[in-house]
Amino acid sequence: MKVFNRQAIAQHLDLDDAEARLAQGFMAYSAGKVQVPPVQAFSFAQANGDCCIKSAWLEGSDTFTVKVSTGFYDNPALGLDSNDGLMLVLSACNGQPLALLADQGWLTSVRTALAGRIVARVLAPARVEAIGVLGTGSQARLQLEYLKAVTECREVIVWGRSEAALSDYHDFAEALGFNVRTTLEPQAVAQAANLIICATPSREPLLMRDWLRPGTHITAVGADASGKQELDPWLVAAADRIVVDSIPQCSQYGEVSHAVKAGMIDWLGLVELGRVLDGSNPGREHEAQITLADLTGVAVQDAQIARCAYEALLGSN
Amino acid sequence: MKVFNRQAIAQHLDLDDAEARLAQGFMAYSAGKVQVPPVQAFSFAQANGDCCIKSAWLEGSDTFTVKVSTGFYDNPALGLDSNDGLMLVLSACNGQPLALLADQGWLTSVRTALAGRIVARVLAPARVEAIGVLGTGSQARLQLEYLKAVTECREVIVWGRSEAALSDYHDFAEALGFNVRTTLEPQAVAQAANLIICATPSREPLLMRDWLRPGTHITAVGADASGKQELDPWLVAAADRIVVDSIPQCSQYGEVSHAVKAGMIDWLGLVELGRVLDGSNPGREHEAQITLADLTGVAVQDAQIARCAYEALLGSN
Repeated sequence: MKVFNRQAIAQHLDLDDAEARLAQGFMAYSAGKVQVPPVQAFSFAQANGDCCIKSAWLEGSDTFTVKVSTGFYDNPALGLDSNDGLMLVLSACNGQPLALLADQGWLTSVRTALAGRIVARVLAPARVEAIGVLGTGSQARLQLEYLKAVTECREVIVWGRSEAALSDYHDFAEALGFNVRTTLEPQAVAQAANLIICATPSREPLLMRDWLRPGTHITAVGADASGKQELDPWLVAAADRIVVDSIPQCSQYGEVSHAVKAGMIDWLGLVELGRVLDGSNPGREHEAQITLADLTGVAVQDAQIARCAYEALLGSN
Repeated sequence: MKVFNRQAIAQHLDLDDAEARLAQGFMAYSAGKVQVPPVQAFSFAQANGDCCIKSAWLEGSDTFTVKVSTGFYDNPALGLDSNDGLMLVLSACNGQPLALLADQGWLTSVRTALAGRIVARVLAPARVEAIGVLGTGSQARLQLEYLKAVTECREVIVWGRSEAALSDYHDFAEALGFNVRTTLEPQAVAQAANLIICATPSREPLLMRDWLRPGTHITAVGADASGKQELDPWLVAAADRIVVDSIPQCSQYGEVSHAVKAGMIDWLGLVELGRVLDGSNPGREHEAQITLADLTGVAVQDAQIARCAYEALLGSN
């Protein structure tokens, strides 16, 4: 069994290959060809922490993956990151453990941001006037970075709650080659941008229906657990097309769950990303459509990116 | 994060300490003080394999454990063991992965056999005339080895299906200091022994009710999944005391499940091992009682033995 640290993984992972594997994974998931046992979850109330264990096997693959993710929200006061974790790659042919990817959660961030890139390829407007970003954290950064491969637009407007965080994000995005505006008003993002990424841990709507420009696409990645919400449910209900990574997950606790539970949309109208990627459902159909993607994260993404990293690391040895 | 292989783990694990931790774990489990998420299971039909992921946290402990176990039943033809696996020890204080115990399933064998020792301490007759063993595999060996700490009896009679396997077991048990008899008739075991270990993958009853001597104790560890069975359900129904590691597991798929499902015993009459160890229920009450222990294996055992191994390994560094 080989052990690889975050640095080695980051050095060898090929993002384009990973994107292609993720797309295959979404298609297989929506075709019912992925074994995904129920998520295991722990709550460590005494330490304000939690842990979840997600596992997946894409049938036919000769490896499967077990991912352990932890979140301990008092860690920053101890000088530690809030999030940690690892992925195990095991043989689906003989059961032997093949690799421990001690990525500290990095591969999860990457597969989440690459899902945003995949979604943008099928739903973003042809002409992006500005990219809008809600949030200033690591996922808000990776999403922007990865969108460079999808659009030539180099205008970005970013919203955050703190001037200091916005200033840091400004420097980050400028170094990527963007012209950067920052704002403390979410409405300014909606007015300027027609490709918007929501990557916050918000528990209340940040973007309102009436603010949106026609033809805008929104990718919401923040609502990955019950109680989280970034969008006005009326905005969700007003979207012309809603694409989700997983209908069961998104209708239960994703961004669209609030509108589903309020009866404002019917989950039968949701379309899984895998069904768009395999051509059985359309992506964006015309430039005036408002489109929304809700990404809660599915375990097949972990299996696919772990497999991709493992092969790259093996090849480098 | 530290990585330890099977050899290092076996070198440093203290069996008496492990036994004490397991007893604590059973008591905590039965007191509802253990978080045990549902088991994750994969089926790899193309390779005649399976995998299960068991996780547990004993509340108050500063570590928790995730165990991955694989069984690939065509492996021996490939020159590999059927079973493999590992345990991860993580901090319940900050979420960081602390250790990978690459034990290849060894700790699972040990914690299972130590549970047999714990059970024997509370249920075995005071005077053991002979130990009976059904099965000749690695668990049938460990169980016998660990019973040496519980009884001074050094007579053993072992049943198996093959003369070759019995011959190997004979040599193994003799080297442990036992006078050994082997037999191809399970009835001979019941007639000679009053402390019997059943450690086979049988799917049909091997021991019948009418064969048993008064005062016999039986520990059944083979039935760890649906469809497995080592005992006549009438024997189960005739036992004066039945102790199980987990009422939910044993009544669903353990040795006693057959009698429960047939209505021959009521699961309300089952007593968990933790409730005997903490003194709230009696163990053996007199020498004529027939007692039965059904051990399906609970994840808290993994958490406790992994913690024990981890501390021993840390201390050795």
